[in-house]
Amino acid sequence: MHVLVIGAAGMIGRKLVERIAAEEGALGGGLDRLTLVDIVEPPMPSALAAVASSEALDLSQPGSAEKLASARPDIIFHLAAIVSGEAEADFEKGYRVNLDGTRALFEAIRLEGRKEPYRPRVVFASSIAVFGAPFPEKIGDEFFSTPLTSYGTQKAISELLLADYSRRGFFDGIGLRLPTICIRPGKPNKAASGFFSNILREPLVGEEAVLPVEEDVRHWFASPRAAVGFFIHAARLDLEQVGPRRNLTMPGLSATVGEQIEALRRVAGEKAVRLIRREPDATIRRIVLGWPTDFDARRAEKLGFSAEKSFDDIIRIHIEDELGGTIAHGG
Amino acid sequence: MHVLVIGAAGMIGRKLVERIAAEEGALGGGLDRLTLVDIVEPPMPSALAAVASSEALDLSQPGSAEKLASARPDIIFHLAAIVSGEAEADFEKGYRVNLDGTRALFEAIRLEGRKEPYRPRVVFASSIAVFGAPFPEKIGDEFFSTPLTSYGTQKAISELLLADYSRRGFFDGIGLRLPTICIRPGKPNKAASGFFSNILREPLVGEEAVLPVEEDVRHWFASPRAAVGFFIHAARLDLEQVGPRRNLTMPGLSATVGEQIEALRRVAGEKAVRLIRREPDATIRRIVLGWPTDFDARRAEKLGFSAEKSFDDIIRIHIEDELGGTIAHGG
Repeated sequence: MHVLVIGAAGMIGRKLVERIAAEEGALGGGLDRLTLVDIVEPPMPSALAAVASSEALDLSQPGSAEKLASARPDIIFHLAAIVSGEAEADFEKGYRVNLDGTRALFEAIRLEGRKEPYRPRVVFASSIAVFGAPFPEKIGDEFFSTPLTSYGTQKAISELLLADYSRRGFFDGIGLRLPTICIRPGKPNKAASGFFSNILREPLVGEEAVLPVEEDVRHWFASPRAAVGFFIHAARLDLEQVGPRRNLTMPGLSATVGEQIEALRRVAGEKAVRLIRREPDATIRRIVLGWPTDFDARRAEKLGFSAEKSFDDIIRIHIEDELGGTIAHGG
Repeated sequence: MHVLVIGAAGMIGRKLVERIAAEEGALGGGLDRLTLVDIVEPPMPSALAAVASSEALDLSQPGSAEKLASARPDIIFHLAAIVSGEAEADFEKGYRVNLDGTRALFEAIRLEGRKEPYRPRVVFASSIAVFGAPFPEKIGDEFFSTPLTSYGTQKAISELLLADYSRRGFFDGIGLRLPTICIRPGKPNKAASGFFSNILREPLVGEEAVLPVEEDVRHWFASPRAAVGFFIHAARLDLEQVGPRRNLTMPGLSATVGEQIEALRRVAGEKAVRLIRREPDATIRRIVLGWPTDFDARRAEKLGFSAEKSFDDIIRIHIEDELGGTIAHGG
């Protein structure tokens, strides 16, 4: 089995590759070849040195997609994207990478299949950014996509293309609308959503973190481990049972900032909670209030996708996967 | 005011131009210039000879969209499209015309606005083909787009682009999801939906027509006159009150074939009804059963869009607009 990961240098991409490397048969068959690409050269998993190759490649440049498709991978994970803030700031770059890059990949697969029959599994990373406020209390599986960002628009268009190319039999695609990933490892960043992770990750290692919104702000979350699980499950799923509606809102956990903090208190103690500094930021509050707060992701759950049921679990997973199972400043 | 009609040779395009020609100030201002384009040269309305020009032009060819935008029309009606059957039969042509042509237009407007501020009104002809079965009994304004044709996919993607370009301020766009137009003037054609018009239009002039489905088949209709009214209303509407959700399901009439026939009987008599010949066609029945049957088009109605409330009216409008107000074989 030849597996291609596009966007393999990103946070989820790296973790997905680590999981494939760590778990033989994770994708339901032997791994003969693993191709990793991203805009920067992705790290190579040492356990897979015999079968893996890694390359810096811009999917939106002429010839890139054709090159990838000509190797005829059996499973293609497509996670490459310009993030929301950058796609909003640079209109042309966002459309070039997030829309044209994705369409180039889909077209290259279609045209490869005209040479000789070819129908790979394509697992596409979409986003809850395809939805735009106002929302019902819980967003159901049949709620419409009216994105309020160019990023969300590009993801929604890619979903439509994926469904049509799948319907026409050019490939067997599935799109996964990821919740906000929490706890994101790494350093605090300036994404408007960054604080959801910062206020947990930093206190867990004894560092201060800034909370720019009130505790009643509610949002939709899953751990990085759950996100990797979505991709693995989607790669193995029988898509006959999914039918023509190929884009699915992934399960997640709806929680308020207050509930995040309570979980931190339970898992890491009062000392950790005291490291959260409140600095209200009206701009961030305004942005965040336009985001989805809760979903009824019934279809994906029925199809066997699963995420955490409590923020205690999300925090424990971070401690296991990022902190070697222990925390420095327990209370 | 400079008005551009793309797709001016089509059935609705021609009627829209006729209405603009017939009704001074129809678009809320004096008409200084009217540009008509289509893949074939559109007919020129004689009443507007002083201000109108007409040209054959393929929007999907390099330079076409730039040429149109460089004339900086104030209102752009975009009705050009490859129809559903052809877009399904010729995948590449459908995407080239219906998606790339539309995107080229939007891009040309955006880039024209970088030379000097420019923000035209863009009224886009979308379709209920953006929806795919299974449906709720009535499709509400927040139901999701999961098209089951490439045509519907191309329209749904164009809707997303229109909303994003409007949100970014590149133009002031509105998309209209048209019901099936009935009674289509002209000769019977092979479109799967053709019989909905054929069974009324042909008997009204004493000709036989074939009914390939049962009388309980239900669908969603508006007259050509109502469709033209949607475009005129959309060109004048204050889009501030529409907000960022710029694509609207237009009002229509949900009716069964049996109700169509009853209306024909009331308006044109039993003799006309007797000209309908039943020839069940399993293929057409299967296609039609995948189509929407009813909508709750509340948003568009609140915004002042309106369509017929009875099939008697739809038939009378055809008699007025196409048959000079009289029917040959009343009875």
